Amino acid sequence: MTFRLYGFWRSIASFRVRVALRLKNLAFEEISVDILSGGQFSPEYDRVNTAHAVPTLVHKGHSLFQSLAIMEYLDDIHPEPALLPEDPLSRAHARALALIAVADSHPLIAPRVRNHLAATFDADTNACNAWGQYWSLEGLAAYERNLLRQRPAPFAAGPTLTVADICIAGQIVMAGYFKADMTLFPIVAELGERCFALPAFADSLPARS
Amino acid sequence: MTFRLYGFWRSIASFRVRVALRLKNLAFEEISVDILSGGQFSPEYDRVNTAHAVPTLVHKGHSLFQSLAIMEYLDDIHPEPALLPEDPLSRAHARALALIAVADSHPLIAPRVRNHLAATFDADTNACNAWGQYWSLEGLAAYERNLLRQRPAPFAAGPTLTVADICIAGQIVMAGYFKADMTLFPIVAELGERCFALPAFADSLPARS
Repeated sequence: MTFRLYGFWRSIASFRVRVALRLKNLAFEEISVDILSGGQFSPEYDRVNTAHAVPTLVHKGHSLFQSLAIMEYLDDIHPEPALLPEDPLSRAHARALALIAVADSHPLIAPRVRNHLAATFDADTNACNAWGQYWSLEGLAAYERNLLRQRPAPFAAGPTLTVADICIAGQIVMAGYFKADMTLFPIVAELGERCFALPAFADSLPARS
Repeated sequence: MTFRLYGFWRSIASFRVRVALRLKNLAFEEISVDILSGGQFSPEYDRVNTAHAVPTLVHKGHSLFQSLAIMEYLDDIHPEPALLPEDPLSRAHARALALIAVADSHPLIAPRVRNHLAATFDADTNACNAWGQYWSLEGLAAYERNLLRQRPAPFAAGPTLTVADICIAGQIVMAGYFKADMTLFPIVAELGERCFALPAFADSLPARS
């Protein structure tokens, strides 16, 4: 097996990498790191990834981390099908859309953040869920505003599927964890339906991992 | 003026883009968006960036957003000096290091998060500062562990300066906001000294903007 993916079934960042690997038809072995019970902080996993987060993709003995960096790497070494457009402006746009989830929304609901909320502000499960739902909806709202303004077709950054679509699909999965009302975000929801009709997305859903 | 940068003097993400523009010797005009008083949510700024965050770089009439996507764009259109290594594994490593700040640390201390902490958990200024310091130190610790393991030289991802160094420098600036003790992170601190000896970094410091 060429690619070994350290991830977790519920992890949105792991979902993104699973989709990218499947879109490129690359076989991979999955190793579960239970981030709900702190497996990412174990000495064993520290040897794999000093950043103590999932996913990590091990390829040719090298540990690659951060989902967006991993997807770009897969695009660099297996260019077809491309996960980024060719022209610089469109590439920048696809990356920026991806980063709405990767940087502005998803990090706020990671288990380590919920744990710190509980430790610092005595946040109980309900409060943590409300926190997660809030940031989940903020991310979806940012996507809806962008897609409404740009009206791309059929994918988030234009004619071809990119990392932006993978990250938006992940945001939809995350929203499901918090029972977000997707009818508030009709353009995002429609894009999600288009993505999840593809086996690479459907087969990577948490429930199937 | 070819490049118009919507940013804010204290914004770490704006700092990153200022450094990248200066490293590539690209002149730019700065327009301040006061993110402490909510300028990023104004109808005027919504027309520039529907994601309601700084920075936005306007080039040839196009709005580019997300600091990492902007730096990659600048690298695509002005390849010299390169902000990413050439080989795929090193590129992935530089991007992953950049994302420790961009995705795992900096988003947790943005004004919108502090505002939500105050609204949701009655967090006062002290509590918000403690929150910021915690995540600031978490990011620095992740960098220190990585650099200790990898022992790159002289820059974070190897022989050339990359987006990783820019993002680590931004993390050091952010740590300064929370009076973090940099002696806890000697390898990061030394890398920071190397970066801030360069005019592109020193001239982009918040105090000079």
